[in-house]
Amino acid sequence: MNEMTNKWIGKSTIRPDGAEKVTGKAAYAADTSMPGMIWGKVLRSPHPHAIIRSIDTSKAEALPGVKAVVTAADMVEFPVDTPVPLGIQDMRWMARNILAHEKALFHGHPVAAVAATSGAIAEEACKLIEVDYEVLPWAIEIDDAIADDAPILHDFVEFEGKPSNIAGTLEHKLGDLDAGFAEADVVIERSFETRPVHQGYIEPHACLVSVAADGKATIWSSSQGQFMVRAMTAFLTGIPQSSIRAIPAEIGGGFGGKTIVYLEPVATILAKKSGRPVKIVMSREDVMRATGPTSGSKSIVKIGAKKDGTIVAGQGTYWLQAGAFPGSPIRGAAGCAFAPYDIPNVHTFGYDVVSNRSKVAAYRAPGAPIGAYAVECVLDEVAEAIGMDPLKLRLKNAAKQGTKAAHGPVYPVIGYAETVRAAIDHPHYKAPLGKFQGRGVASGYWFNAGGESSAQVNITEDGNVVVTTGHPDIGGSRASIANITAELLGIDYKQVNVLIGDTATIGYSNLTGGSRVLFASAMVVTQSAEKVIEDLKSRAAKLWGIDPEAVIWEGGEARPAGPNAGKFPALTLKELADKATATGGPIGAGTQLNTTGAEGGFATHVCDVEVDVELGIVRVVRYTSFQDAGRAIHPAYVEGQMQGGAAQGIGWALNEEYIYNKDGKVDNAGFLDYRMPVCSDLPMLDNVIIEVPNPAHPQGVRGVGEVPLVPPLAAIANAVHNALGQRFYSLPMSPPKVLAQLDATKLAAE
Amino acid sequence: MNEMTNKWIGKSTIRPDGAEKVTGKAAYAADTSMPGMIWGKVLRSPHPHAIIRSIDTSKAEALPGVKAVVTAADMVEFPVDTPVPLGIQDMRWMARNILAHEKALFHGHPVAAVAATSGAIAEEACKLIEVDYEVLPWAIEIDDAIADDAPILHDFVEFEGKPSNIAGTLEHKLGDLDAGFAEADVVIERSFETRPVHQGYIEPHACLVSVAADGKATIWSSSQGQFMVRAMTAFLTGIPQSSIRAIPAEIGGGFGGKTIVYLEPVATILAKKSGRPVKIVMSREDVMRATGPTSGSKSIVKIGAKKDGTIVAGQGTYWLQAGAFPGSPIRGAAGCAFAPYDIPNVHTFGYDVVSNRSKVAAYRAPGAPIGAYAVECVLDEVAEAIGMDPLKLRLKNAAKQGTKAAHGPVYPVIGYAETVRAAIDHPHYKAPLGKFQGRGVASGYWFNAGGESSAQVNITEDGNVVVTTGHPDIGGSRASIANITAELLGIDYKQVNVLIGDTATIGYSNLTGGSRVLFASAMVVTQSAEKVIEDLKSRAAKLWGIDPEAVIWEGGEARPAGPNAGKFPALTLKELADKATATGGPIGAGTQLNTTGAEGGFATHVCDVEVDVELGIVRVVRYTSFQDAGRAIHPAYVEGQMQGGAAQGIGWALNEEYIYNKDGKVDNAGFLDYRMPVCSDLPMLDNVIIEVPNPAHPQGVRGVGEVPLVPPLAAIANAVHNALGQRFYSLPMSPPKVLAQLDATKLAAE
Repeated sequence: MNEMTNKWIGKSTIRPDGAEKVTGKAAYAADTSMPGMIWGKVLRSPHPHAIIRSIDTSKAEALPGVKAVVTAADMVEFPVDTPVPLGIQDMRWMARNILAHEKALFHGHPVAAVAATSGAIAEEACKLIEVDYEVLPWAIEIDDAIADDAPILHDFVEFEGKPSNIAGTLEHKLGDLDAGFAEADVVIERSFETRPVHQGYIEPHACLVSVAADGKATIWSSSQGQFMVRAMTAFLTGIPQSSIRAIPAEIGGGFGGKTIVYLEPVATILAKKSGRPVKIVMSREDVMRATGPTSGSKSIVKIGAKKDGTIVAGQGTYWLQAGAFPGSPIRGAAGCAFAPYDIPNVHTFGYDVVSNRSKVAAYRAPGAPIGAYAVECVLDEVAEAIGMDPLKLRLKNAAKQGTKAAHGPVYPVIGYAETVRAAIDHPHYKAPLGKFQGRGVASGYWFNAGGESSAQVNITEDGNVVVTTGHPDIGGSRASIANITAELLGIDYKQVNVLIGDTATIGYSNLTGGSRVLFASAMVVTQSAEKVIEDLKSRAAKLWGIDPEAVIWEGGEARPAGPNAGKFPALTLKELADKATATGGPIGAGTQLNTTGAEGGFATHVCDVEVDVELGIVRVVRYTSFQDAGRAIHPAYVEGQMQGGAAQGIGWALNEEYIYNKDGKVDNAGFLDYRMPVCSDLPMLDNVIIEVPNPAHPQGVRGVGEVPLVPPLAAIANAVHNALGQRFYSLPMSPPKVLAQLDATKLAAE
Repeated sequence: MNEMTNKWIGKSTIRPDGAEKVTGKAAYAADTSMPGMIWGKVLRSPHPHAIIRSIDTSKAEALPGVKAVVTAADMVEFPVDTPVPLGIQDMRWMARNILAHEKALFHGHPVAAVAATSGAIAEEACKLIEVDYEVLPWAIEIDDAIADDAPILHDFVEFEGKPSNIAGTLEHKLGDLDAGFAEADVVIERSFETRPVHQGYIEPHACLVSVAADGKATIWSSSQGQFMVRAMTAFLTGIPQSSIRAIPAEIGGGFGGKTIVYLEPVATILAKKSGRPVKIVMSREDVMRATGPTSGSKSIVKIGAKKDGTIVAGQGTYWLQAGAFPGSPIRGAAGCAFAPYDIPNVHTFGYDVVSNRSKVAAYRAPGAPIGAYAVECVLDEVAEAIGMDPLKLRLKNAAKQGTKAAHGPVYPVIGYAETVRAAIDHPHYKAPLGKFQGRGVASGYWFNAGGESSAQVNITEDGNVVVTTGHPDIGGSRASIANITAELLGIDYKQVNVLIGDTATIGYSNLTGGSRVLFASAMVVTQSAEKVIEDLKSRAAKLWGIDPEAVIWEGGEARPAGPNAGKFPALTLKELADKATATGGPIGAGTQLNTTGAEGGFATHVCDVEVDVELGIVRVVRYTSFQDAGRAIHPAYVEGQMQGGAAQGIGWALNEEYIYNKDGKVDNAGFLDYRMPVCSDLPMLDNVIIEVPNPAHPQGVRGVGEVPLVPPLAAIANAVHNALGQRFYSLPMSPPKVLAQLDATKLAAE
């Protein structure tokens, strides 16, 4: 494909889902209903930590209108008496997260569920369920959870030979750390803290499940993966995957938080028991109390550099909250922390810490913002200490093709240095600052992922194109795939309709997550479209009675080439579609692949803040993101991802946190009290897309969805330091915290 | 595949859709609803023939609750000023059948439609639509329609140079008819009449359509082809096919009557205009007045035979009612009439006659029962005349491999003679008869069809199988495909789930019709399953590090073979599915084909009746069908088809007919007055399945759905003659008609 002549790739075409969404007609999971449908409600633990001695559901079952009650006893049983891998999506834990088994492990932990003819009856029935709890002491914060006398959540989880809340560790090593620090002229070590923050998707979890008398289930739900919904529901209910049809509804945001399930298996069991379709819709409070935020963390980072700016050693230790069950994103924290840099000696270590909080879920570049926050803040101090521009320090040490990263890979062609250079050259970086204003910079890395995807490209009888893939479209994959398909087939973008198949009608496709979807689905769509083009050429050849090799496909038409050039009038897609029956039948092709070659993504952010020193309010006044997209198939969507990541990072850095009360319960489980940024909190978020094509991808794509959330925490913290001359090592830098530190500094100075 | 060791093919496995249907949970089109949905109602013509001078919808539009009104002016305009092919599904006529344009052509012809917030408001609004009609004279019956002074329905339809209601003709010729008759010792010529009969599906037509703000439409409806729904709706609304997603609901019977659309384009336009999802559900009365029955007919058949039973000439002339628009099944009548026989000289001729009745639609072996009725009754008289057993007469003249049929083909391997032999040898044919009892026999032929089908076979992560095809399952295709897939993969039937894809998620697949579905879908499923097996073998080879050629697939496992035999433990489907990511990604394969090689199907029926000569009631007391299924993949479903055809034939022969009043309106538009057979009208319908495998098909399949309706009309008529000693040349042989003829004969004898 010639870049100069691209007609659709690189164009911000009209979003195929736009009209449905802005007119309010897009069908989300809660919008679906079925004849005979009843309503499910979940009973949740009122204690942050308690043994469940017994559950008596008889009164609830006796309430008129109640059709089914479920407890953990209704699920397929999985012993959890062995250490488990640190997968954030381990299904054995999932069972216990979805319905508490032996113990309730956090306030809001589901204990039972009821399906009844109305939501009100189901709620009333929940109140009639008698749970005999033995309340235990609890631990919410990392320090409390790893203290010697901490209440242990899982008896058989051991660390260093004894029961512990440290459920696992992860280590990356490169070079010789001591030797590295010995070479350094400057060594800076700092400790940091971040709080758990929620993904904050607009749409609460919801599902509708129908189970037929022969056990076949149909699930409508919003998720980041209909195949994940199918797999987890099959695993927890014992229904074979082939008997579950998981239909992806339109999704109102996920950000990683919908890569696991909470409701689907419960609704499936309720539907099976009651013989009625069951709908469950979470309230916002349910979402905030019992669905995964990302981890809170503590970390210590130490960096050594020479006076000329050469970084010679880096060390990072991270403690990440996993919530009630093992599996925090320590891989993202420890793996991504130093990844933008070519440092010979690196050591990172991560601890996975359980405590009596809701189980964490993936959140956009899981763990990476935590890793980068500490490293990028210390780098700012290193730059200050040696008197070097912080971006130039980064450029000097920038990882490039051939760099060996501590977390494993030797980098192929990457575009990190290009993001730093673009930032250095951008007017933003030279713009003057006012009083109490400061500028900060930071970089970030995300692994990106490939993995399994499937696609089918079919030509309709009237010569248009339907493309089906198996990933929910969260960040613009439909529009991007339409661009690519139109480009490859040489037809108008409007002729292509891209749809998301359910688990029964498209091949296995892994999650929408890991910034993998466009990378992987563009690959399978490209291969499918190429097969279709070959088929179209051979059909034209058949009609002309010439060799298929002597046919070219160009501008949406088959044309005779070589010795036959000009001998026959071109055949358009429409004409070939019209003759499909006579030339061999339906035109279409599919591809199923485990894709590889998704190389890392890098970004550098520049942020200006202004601090109201009277009120302690930090306002972001200018923000520019520089990111290597490989190739931006649909630039407006890439910018949307960059802006979205920056906005979420601003919330994480400045305001978002869970406030637990003395009873171990979240006190601010709602959007009024849990302070996410709204439009009026933000400046225009500017973007500069860098394109260093990924040579392993037919269109040069790199994932773009997650990197944008990696740099903001540090960029903002560094900007606040630049504005005030003092550093904050704990997020969020919320008004009370900023004021308290300003007051304390003032008092200390007086 | 070794026939002797088949584990699933030939077994009457549990029906995959059974539980859903018997528990009332299967979702038919009328069961679906959507948020914001409104209701559509259709205004129908009160006249059988009238010019529509104008339609004023303003009062209807002004009624509170009314959201949209449509008339023909809202449809894409197609001129119909040229003769059209005789396709029963021609889309240009369809537009005018769905909403009357220039003229209303039958009582009940849709004239306008309204969508409103309730069905009652929509109905009220219909009454407010002012249509200015100029009522014209009308013609209902064939004789009236072809009379010299007949009112002409379509001015530009001409026959023999002048406007006519004869809209087309069809002719088949073989040999020299005159020479043939000249050789005959016996020549018998008779005239016959049949009445239009309705398919009588239990589920009335229904649909729900949502159109997004950007014009993309989603259609839920019951039909015999989601791709047909998509094509016709696209054609009549101007929406590209790629922007229409037609989702097939479970279907409550079709029998050919749901191979065209009535409501979907209307609901689509209403939904587009109103911005709301629109549901339209027909009443039974709507169905009876305005959806296709099959043709009523007149025919003259003349057969010449030698004394030894050699048939030397056959001639048939058929007039078939098309209803209000051209396109009756004259091809089935004229083509199938003499098809079971090896006759050197044949001439058939068909006339397509329009009149002021609802447009006919396909009905199970369209036209063939009409063709066979006349031929098989005359054959009965020929047998009587030469004193030969009627089955032996058929056997003597039975078509076989190499026979040239008048309608075109030279037969490949066929199983007609086998059905006759089986009937001769069956105890039924020798059983004694009582007073006023009689036995009749008749044979029948149906073309069968191949055509376009698509399939996808996917292996789930837990090692089960999902098969998707694109045809609504009416006669058991899901169970049969599951049998075939389990057989090919060597796994348990329960591991296979067969689903019907919508138009967006499976390749183009032609109608469920023509007895084509199992023939064609077994082909594409077989090819897909074979690709999957090749893939599984190569994955096993990869895991073992050996050549894929050295792997066999047997009993649901990959095993090393040849020099490696026994070197590695076998890998099951489940184990290979578990390792899919590591061995290349998702496992699955699809196939899209225009299938060929669907050879004709033949049946012979033996029927015993008892006539109540006081009341004129003919009761069928014993009935046995003998049919060549090629290979019965799922015998219980094959028997179901045989029984269903016989039952419908009994209704057609004995009772069913439309009764028009003097105003040209149907007087019996409901199941109380339109007398279809119910269980108590029928004896146990016995079946003998003959298997002469179709060599052109991987499993030997021949279509079985339509042939069973071809012989009954004549078999019953011949049985009545055998019981009473007199012949009836007009159907139905209903009590009043039988009594009248018995009385007339008695009077004549007195």
